[in-house]
Amino acid sequence: MTAQNKSAGLGIALPDPPPPAGDYQPVMIRGGFGFVSGQVPVRDGRLLFTGRVGIELTPEQGRAAAEIAALNVLAQIDKALPSWDQFGGLLRVEGFVASASGFTNQPEILDGASRLFAEALGELGQHSRAAFSVEQLPLNASVELVVTFATQTQIPASQN
Amino acid sequence: MTAQNKSAGLGIALPDPPPPAGDYQPVMIRGGFGFVSGQVPVRDGRLLFTGRVGIELTPEQGRAAAEIAALNVLAQIDKALPSWDQFGGLLRVEGFVASASGFTNQPEILDGASRLFAEALGELGQHSRAAFSVEQLPLNASVELVVTFATQTQIPASQN
Amino acid sequence: MTAQNKSAGLGIALPDPPPPAGDYQPVMIRGGFGFVSGQVPVRDGRLLFTGRVGIELTPEQGRAAAEIAALNVLAQIDKALPSWDQFGGLLRVEGFVASASGFTNQPEILDGASRLFAEALGELGQHSRAAFSVEQLPLNASVELVVTFATQTQIPASQN
Repeated sequence: MTAQNKSAGLGIALPDPPPPAGDYQPVMIRGGFGFVSGQVPVRDGRLLFTGRVGIELTPEQGRAAAEIAALNVLAQIDKALPSWDQFGGLLRVEGFVASASGFTNQPEILDGASRLFAEALGELGQHSRAAFSVEQLPLNASVELVVTFATQTQIPASQN
Repeated sequence: MTAQNKSAGLGIALPDPPPPAGDYQPVMIRGGFGFVSGQVPVRDGRLLFTGRVGIELTPEQGRAAAEIAALNVLAQIDKALPSWDQFGGLLRVEGFVASASGFTNQPEILDGASRLFAEALGELGQHSRAAFSVEQLPLNASVELVVTFATQTQIPASQN
Repeated sequence: MTAQNKSAGLGIALPDPPPPAGDYQPVMIRGGFGFVSGQVPVRDGRLLFTGRVGIELTPEQGRAAAEIAALNVLAQIDKALPSWDQFGGLLRVEGFVASASGFTNQPEILDGASRLFAEALGELGQHSRAAFSVEQLPLNASVELVVTFATQTQIPASQN
């Protein structure tokens, strides 16, 4: 855990953001939008809740996994922005859930992430969402979140 | 069906937009872009054409499912915008098709959605697209569409 | 190969961009952002490296497939922009890898694409990324890339 991150105002403690799993950036920001790389339920360098909901995991464990992945999304935004004053709100959450064949309640699992975003961000946590079921995810993760957010864009005074 | 929606100018009747399947918003609009939550072939509260193309469904049924999901995309945009004058055109359609192992003509299925967008929106219905095959979708849907669109952004007069 | 494409400055030869697989546009550009349709490892009209990593393909072949798909992404951008001076950098790469059950190192496969982007584009090739494992892709492709990029937006002089 980061003792002094910028998230004091969020009212929740954020983990250290996980490093990328390959040759890419954790977050790209451009033109008022931010693009967060896929986040999985890693904590302190260990991937938690591996496997599929409906086989290795219960729905409750799946929701807990979604919550940890959501905390990592917030940790990445926290690191990428100079301050949360620059944050303009979530826009889209795409959630992939590794699932047993026949388990089709992925929305229930992803509500674990959506509720955490609401608790941490209030109105700025509102988002559109798309849920998907997959047989497996990279590294055998149970949940992966792909998030797009808005930044506060200000027209520099020099342009007026 | 909505008797008096704003889509009169589209030349097609739009259904009532389906409610979200969890704790999220159907559409988010920001900075000239709109993000529609994943849409499936729900009509009048019932999910139609469940199952996989190549097993429970024929390709023709898959195309019909894609068309219904596309109508729901338009219904969500219709509800989210004050008027279609604010609509700036589709940008990206990501289409997920629940498919039998060995059925790999997902583009043919998604053309059901793409052609409906062209009929309803003309030039503003043009879009980039990505097609995917999945073993199953949430709620056992056969097709899910994730759409990004543009809005007409106008620089307020006070900024000039 | 195109003898005279606009990519001379990239230092690599680009293939002709593959035509769309259905009723859609290869690239849409709006408001400072570009959306590239899903690209697969097609070259000269033939889909190369079909099948799944871990069954029909080795990881090395998967990386080669990701590289060819990445070249097609660049070819599409090259065709869509009047010049690479208008290119503002990659933003997001979503990579889907057809994989054997149990093969979960999709990030290693997608590094084939990420490194090619870095070589061709330098700083402007930096991107966020999300990796996915799928059982199969359209047309039996082994890799599909969905890319979002930035364009250089300039405020027309008449607006100042």
